[in-house]
Amino acid sequence: MADAITPRSEDYSQWYLDIIKNAKLADYSPVRGCMIIRPNGYELWENMQAGLDGMFKETGHKNAYFPIFIPQSFLAKEADHVEGFAKECAVVTHSRLKVDEEQGLIADPDSKLEENLIVRPTSETIIWDTYSRWIQSWRDLPILMNQWANVVRWEMRTRLFLRTMEFLWQEGHTAHATEQEAVDETLTILDVYATFAEDYMAVPVIRGVKTASERFAGAVETYCIEAMMQDGKALQAGTSHFLGQNFAKAFDCKFQNKNNELEYVWATSWGVSTRLIGALIMVHSDDQGLILPPRLAPTQVALVPIYRKDEDRIQVLEKARQIEADLKAVGVRIFVDDRDGYRPGWKFNEYEVQGVPVRLALGPRDVQNGTVEVARRDNGEKETVEQTGLVAHIQETLEAVQNGLFERALKMREDMTTSVDSYDDFKSVLDEKGGFIRMHWDGTDETELQIKNETKATIRCIPIEGYEEEGVDPVSGKPSKGRVYFARSY
Amino acid sequence: MADAITPRSEDYSQWYLDIIKNAKLADYSPVRGCMIIRPNGYELWENMQAGLDGMFKETGHKNAYFPIFIPQSFLAKEADHVEGFAKECAVVTHSRLKVDEEQGLIADPDSKLEENLIVRPTSETIIWDTYSRWIQSWRDLPILMNQWANVVRWEMRTRLFLRTMEFLWQEGHTAHATEQEAVDETLTILDVYATFAEDYMAVPVIRGVKTASERFAGAVETYCIEAMMQDGKALQAGTSHFLGQNFAKAFDCKFQNKNNELEYVWATSWGVSTRLIGALIMVHSDDQGLILPPRLAPTQVALVPIYRKDEDRIQVLEKARQIEADLKAVGVRIFVDDRDGYRPGWKFNEYEVQGVPVRLALGPRDVQNGTVEVARRDNGEKETVEQTGLVAHIQETLEAVQNGLFERALKMREDMTTSVDSYDDFKSVLDEKGGFIRMHWDGTDETELQIKNETKATIRCIPIEGYEEEGVDPVSGKPSKGRVYFARSY
Repeated sequence: MADAITPRSEDYSQWYLDIIKNAKLADYSPVRGCMIIRPNGYELWENMQAGLDGMFKETGHKNAYFPIFIPQSFLAKEADHVEGFAKECAVVTHSRLKVDEEQGLIADPDSKLEENLIVRPTSETIIWDTYSRWIQSWRDLPILMNQWANVVRWEMRTRLFLRTMEFLWQEGHTAHATEQEAVDETLTILDVYATFAEDYMAVPVIRGVKTASERFAGAVETYCIEAMMQDGKALQAGTSHFLGQNFAKAFDCKFQNKNNELEYVWATSWGVSTRLIGALIMVHSDDQGLILPPRLAPTQVALVPIYRKDEDRIQVLEKARQIEADLKAVGVRIFVDDRDGYRPGWKFNEYEVQGVPVRLALGPRDVQNGTVEVARRDNGEKETVEQTGLVAHIQETLEAVQNGLFERALKMREDMTTSVDSYDDFKSVLDEKGGFIRMHWDGTDETELQIKNETKATIRCIPIEGYEEEGVDPVSGKPSKGRVYFARSY
Repeated sequence: MADAITPRSEDYSQWYLDIIKNAKLADYSPVRGCMIIRPNGYELWENMQAGLDGMFKETGHKNAYFPIFIPQSFLAKEADHVEGFAKECAVVTHSRLKVDEEQGLIADPDSKLEENLIVRPTSETIIWDTYSRWIQSWRDLPILMNQWANVVRWEMRTRLFLRTMEFLWQEGHTAHATEQEAVDETLTILDVYATFAEDYMAVPVIRGVKTASERFAGAVETYCIEAMMQDGKALQAGTSHFLGQNFAKAFDCKFQNKNNELEYVWATSWGVSTRLIGALIMVHSDDQGLILPPRLAPTQVALVPIYRKDEDRIQVLEKARQIEADLKAVGVRIFVDDRDGYRPGWKFNEYEVQGVPVRLALGPRDVQNGTVEVARRDNGEKETVEQTGLVAHIQETLEAVQNGLFERALKMREDMTTSVDSYDDFKSVLDEKGGFIRMHWDGTDETELQIKNETKATIRCIPIEGYEEEGVDPVSGKPSKGRVYFARSY
């Protein structure tokens, strides 16, 4: 039986962990900060991967795989990059263990490496070292490559999915002949990410640009999608970086252009990670458990057969199998839960905490009447419908759940977005309501830092849409070109 | 333009590397022993993953993900296991770099870990530690779990795909209530592997059991599939281990059975890796380049349009697009190579070295006559066929290539399999012909080791089929229960 779920209003952090535990998505591991992604969580990730991977391939990208280890010296080649990543990494120094009579198993001193290896926190350096050998002429460009991989960043404060020492992600690394082409690529991917968040995850996002202080270490410009959680905190859901020629210069990657001149190659990199699962949970779920959008749900429909007598059992299961076959035929992911030894009520609860979008119940009377009970996880609505036309009804219901979740999340975000024109209002909205706060900003690091230090709110992004509006920064009193999105964040 | 490929007869090892380089499958990386899997190689791996993953799921398995790091103490818990894996592993000892004024970037001594972490060489230990928390009662069993992951073994002598320090694989880890169920699972997976090798890779395999000395470190019994390469060396293509209760005992994993008694859980583990790509190359390819079986080929059909005049160009490309659409509609992976700046002959060569199963050529005369040239990569046959009925013809041709490759590989293996009854014959066949040698063996470690030391041939497996035949071990003169498969191997 599932454990109790702490209500959101009582303790949001504990609620989040309770959701994960009850839905069996992930578990802590014996290695501090590393998580175990359980089958329910991993299947969700597989569905996310399939959606994203299809969109990457449609936009001309191919997958590849680069080594997990990066020579320590590579990290140091791009000045900002080493600053950003050297402080939190797993360092491999030896290649063998041996049994020491006093200390037991130890790293064999004789196996000390000549150069330390770093477990990749991200792969720009090793990839640009490689590109410098692969790219000679404009004919070798563009390279549109992605990899699905695990990466490690030595985080001190971790939280399942949101911030873990090891996480799974995809990292795209592209190489271009012109600046414009690289900038276009960065924006193409930002679009892919936003479309994925909204159409698959049913999570509305703000598309924007990071300020200089929030940029990726080594980027010229970092674009991002930002989402709002139910507790009023923002979450960065994906980033797409225009890297300029920074890595090409660091790794001496030049190409011969059509005029036979040598130029440095232009670059982008971009990634989303298992963090998206954290966002998914925090946007949609409620005090009863996980809520999943149908497009990503491993099981879209769970059918619970109900019977007491053996003769009923046969009839009910026969009908259940028929419904299963009909729905599978049109691609609906249905599971008929005919497990013995669990009461229907227990099963209902199981699918509720696991966030299955639609739950069917089928009893002897339904078989007699040609009906079935359809329950929606998102709004709790139940109805008894005719078996005739059930397939179309289920398809419409799944569509309605998908759209309903997006609309609900959009309304939540809109309710949680406030425009303010004074620093006092800013502080009181932040403390009393939270959410996104749209306020004018003068564009300086100083003001940004002052606000961050005084309120713990950061500029989530300079939005791509709806930014242009002349005004005054209420903190510095200086002129501003537009409102940016502030929030406290994960 | 592709580089020359060294003929097999001249230098088989160099031929193998030339094939990989020309087909752009993989590349060496700046980290010794780690490879870069290029898009052509990775797409092949994705197709292999899709085939295997589908079969795992059909047999009831789910994917999950466990941490890349294993606490050093875990490795020591299973006595055989530590012996097998502690000698060759990447040891993480620090969590931060810092700039030292004299030495430059160094592992920060203040960040030394309390306990070293090992980059997983395989995940039995961390998974059984987890299972010991997940499993309480018979109701929690079986657990049928797999993970797709990267693993690291510190190999000194590496070769692309066949033996690399980091490689990609899947590792299944299952937990069962009874010994019989675990043994059955081991054999189910052996079957999945053999079916995949034969039906997808077109590589015939011998199913068998490893001798005690060749067993996985920690297994009670290791089952395997063994394949024969064109140079007469064997290659272990997949292993499925019955682990008994060894890991359950090491990690104190007990369950309450239906009689309310506490029992140790029964286990299996099994894996195949990117090594399979090495096998695929070495079984099918020829001196012209890679040859891929259609079921796994990223591109199954390459169409090269041929024209000189602009008016021809339009007509030829229009027809090419139509053929492309027709073939895509039935799921054939076709690529129309309309790139400018490359001559048709260059393109033909490109698809030959990349192993594309079928190459089409379409010129103005073909458009006029309603024909197209179809060339098979496996046997070099070319024919001009009617465009009417082309789709069915291509489907049949792909099927014929798939089957033809298997038949050719089977004949090669049969030609390369010799039964001998004397140790002299054994040695001369081994040196002059190579391949599998079926010979009686008395079942002792001593004889096995003697043969290995004297000839470098090992027992690849005790075959599951065709083993029972009373006889005499010609080396020891002792009685034998059957012939086993000896070979030199990769």
